[in-house]
Amino acid sequence: MKSIFFFITILFATVVHAQQNFTQDSIIIKRMVDDVMKSKAAYENLRVLCKKIGPRLSGSLGAEKAITAGLNMLKAAGADTVYLQPCMVPHWVRGAKEVGYVIVGGQKMNLQLTSLGNSEGTKGKLINAPIVEVTNIDELATKNIKGAIVFINIAMNPTYIRTFKAYGESGVGRRSGPSIAAKYGAIAVMVRSLASNEDGHPHTGTTVYNDSFSKIPALAISTNDAERLHKSLLTGKPVIGYLKNNCTMLGMVKSYNVIGELRGSTYPEQIITVGGHLDSWDLAEGAQDDGTGIVQSIEVIRVLKATGMQPKRTVRAVLFMNEENGGGGAKAYLQQAKLLKEQHVFALESDAGGFTPRGFNLDMPSTKKATIQQWAPFFYNYGVYDFKETGSGSDIGPLKEIGTALAGLGTDSQRYFDLHHAETDVFESVSKRELDLGAANMAALIWLVSEYGL
Amino acid sequence: MKSIFFFITILFATVVHAQQNFTQDSIIIKRMVDDVMKSKAAYENLRVLCKKIGPRLSGSLGAEKAITAGLNMLKAAGADTVYLQPCMVPHWVRGAKEVGYVIVGGQKMNLQLTSLGNSEGTKGKLINAPIVEVTNIDELATKNIKGAIVFINIAMNPTYIRTFKAYGESGVGRRSGPSIAAKYGAIAVMVRSLASNEDGHPHTGTTVYNDSFSKIPALAISTNDAERLHKSLLTGKPVIGYLKNNCTMLGMVKSYNVIGELRGSTYPEQIITVGGHLDSWDLAEGAQDDGTGIVQSIEVIRVLKATGMQPKRTVRAVLFMNEENGGGGAKAYLQQAKLLKEQHVFALESDAGGFTPRGFNLDMPSTKKATIQQWAPFFYNYGVYDFKETGSGSDIGPLKEIGTALAGLGTDSQRYFDLHHAETDVFESVSKRELDLGAANMAALIWLVSEYGL
Repeated sequence: MKSIFFFITILFATVVHAQQNFTQDSIIIKRMVDDVMKSKAAYENLRVLCKKIGPRLSGSLGAEKAITAGLNMLKAAGADTVYLQPCMVPHWVRGAKEVGYVIVGGQKMNLQLTSLGNSEGTKGKLINAPIVEVTNIDELATKNIKGAIVFINIAMNPTYIRTFKAYGESGVGRRSGPSIAAKYGAIAVMVRSLASNEDGHPHTGTTVYNDSFSKIPALAISTNDAERLHKSLLTGKPVIGYLKNNCTMLGMVKSYNVIGELRGSTYPEQIITVGGHLDSWDLAEGAQDDGTGIVQSIEVIRVLKATGMQPKRTVRAVLFMNEENGGGGAKAYLQQAKLLKEQHVFALESDAGGFTPRGFNLDMPSTKKATIQQWAPFFYNYGVYDFKETGSGSDIGPLKEIGTALAGLGTDSQRYFDLHHAETDVFESVSKRELDLGAANMAALIWLVSEYGL
Repeated sequence: MKSIFFFITILFATVVHAQQNFTQDSIIIKRMVDDVMKSKAAYENLRVLCKKIGPRLSGSLGAEKAITAGLNMLKAAGADTVYLQPCMVPHWVRGAKEVGYVIVGGQKMNLQLTSLGNSEGTKGKLINAPIVEVTNIDELATKNIKGAIVFINIAMNPTYIRTFKAYGESGVGRRSGPSIAAKYGAIAVMVRSLASNEDGHPHTGTTVYNDSFSKIPALAISTNDAERLHKSLLTGKPVIGYLKNNCTMLGMVKSYNVIGELRGSTYPEQIITVGGHLDSWDLAEGAQDDGTGIVQSIEVIRVLKATGMQPKRTVRAVLFMNEENGGGGAKAYLQQAKLLKEQHVFALESDAGGFTPRGFNLDMPSTKKATIQQWAPFFYNYGVYDFKETGSGSDIGPLKEIGTALAGLGTDSQRYFDLHHAETDVFESVSKRELDLGAANMAALIWLVSEYGL
């Protein structure tokens, strides 16, 4: 009987203690969230990245400027150590604006188009060939595309509520289509932009050449043009495409990840990474992709410092270089971690736009996942409730090799692919409140991990 | 023993049956959601409301055109009965563009400002008086404001994650401030726009005069101007305000609610209302407020018809007139319901912008609430998970008097008050996917109620 009484007392004490902890931690988190929502820091940093610097493609002058700006922002945020980490990145240049049109029954139809990232160009020559349309990747093998310009017309599925799923599925055309088309004798490829809306803006993005086949020019056309071209082809009239692009791959050059740390007070050797990518496509300001992830990661450092929440574990904000067309920064980060035998306990990436946060995607063993999932109630008040999805981010992905628990900020994805990789990805597309709410939730999770580990 | 066995069998059969129903209903809901997400109907209807018609203030030509357009849209959606319901609405006109500035130490500072809805004007006269600032409503009584132009500077609280809460709290200045200021002798009022961002656009909205006091001119200034004016006043220099506005209340005129029905197959006498409001402020296109609610309500009719889901109960889409400055449509709808002794079992309003849906706010007895809450799993796949908030909408609110269970679409509210009642509330601010996702979830809830009742 006594022992039962003792057990109940202990249980009661434990519950009370847990409740007290929860209340205390909720207060700390609310303090951080309030600070972020009232602050202009993240939004003004984003304004600098977008309006003062603009496009930041790896190897470009914009990327160089962004590295300097990132260093300064991390210092201003209060990081106690700020440094650059060298990495190698491809230097691809677009060259003069692309030219593209089709002739349908004697009528010229201009196309809004853009070279895909890492694509080869026509070296200034206007090439032409009949257009052959495919609406799935398998048709590249079954249709006669020899000597043709292939029009890969795979729309994003509008019925997928998570737009990233549609992007992943339809993206095969952009990523692998050009090399498969080359295998079957096509001379160039035009892909329908990976976009969730219909408008006149082409969306770029990386294509990945297979070295076994010739590297043929690969461009994206706007979704409006894809619809028009599709209709033209339905008429049965011959459609001849004309293309000229001037992009070229200049080879590998040196660049940098930008890193700022708050050293852990108790377990400084345990590293928590929070990051996004500093590079962006050259067509726009890279606001949602991924300026928002950059300034949110810096904001995590700022708010921990501003609210006096010295982390027990080391929190490191990493502004990765070269996510868009090579992952050079991500590779260098892993390499250095291995070289220095660093202990990377957790990494969080924000690379799904600065939209209202909805959850955290988790990629880690189930016991660690359970630890984070039990913290879910801390986040409900701030609109974040979904801890069931799997995933993280391209920049931190390589850390899986050394056993790091990975996570990604899950956002409301409805608008992302309207502007992703297109010239519409500008500062004005970002809501200050949505951006800040993402940063606030990230700060809360980073602080919980820094306090309790996984 | 036998009876236990029997009980288990029954229980098992019940569970299996419930599971089968859930699966079947999920399939029906998915079919409706897919149809909405693929359709362009709601988005194109919104384009017409915003771009072909534009502002639709009660009593205006725009409102008249919108009534005709609404009728046509409901017919095109497949409603089996479409009709107009008369109501009385105030006819308030803004007149020529307002003029406003302040003189601070001899320097002129122009103000971006707009008359509040239903406000009296200065009748074309440029009035002037010293500016006195108050930062909460109680200061109207404690500060000396006699003969002054009062600047009511109550910012929306950025730390409230639900922006409607901040709007409600800070909105007291706009709604009640002018009459309280008049009580203490002020000659006019300038309120800080109820906006969640800082920019140069003033936000209008209704002010409610108390007939016991004189009706003094009431205007809103942009948040940027509010910040500048606040700083000017901090210098201690005298600040003289100058105002001219030309608005006037012309009295009550006849207008209409627009109604389209799908007659219930089994319980036609049981009416389910789904609606938004057709009128909008005169400054912009009324896209998010509340063009989106209108086209979503029409979309509910369209998708039920398009997918062959004849409702068991009567589903009625109501495009309410005069939500913004009087509620004439809402009053007429209740009055008619009482006159005809209609049985209104459920009403759902969408008037929180066409942003990503997050939940349904519920205002009904707990047993009915529990019925809807048990349907929550149908909605998780479509991003809607929150069934705990209370509320509905201004247009359906009066139906509470006759015992109707009320609900409101809860949306992601972070961006709403950036554009609410300002000239930035235009078609381009609406995401097709967010709009459609709201309509799809509304259709699912309306269908469930039509099928099972509450």
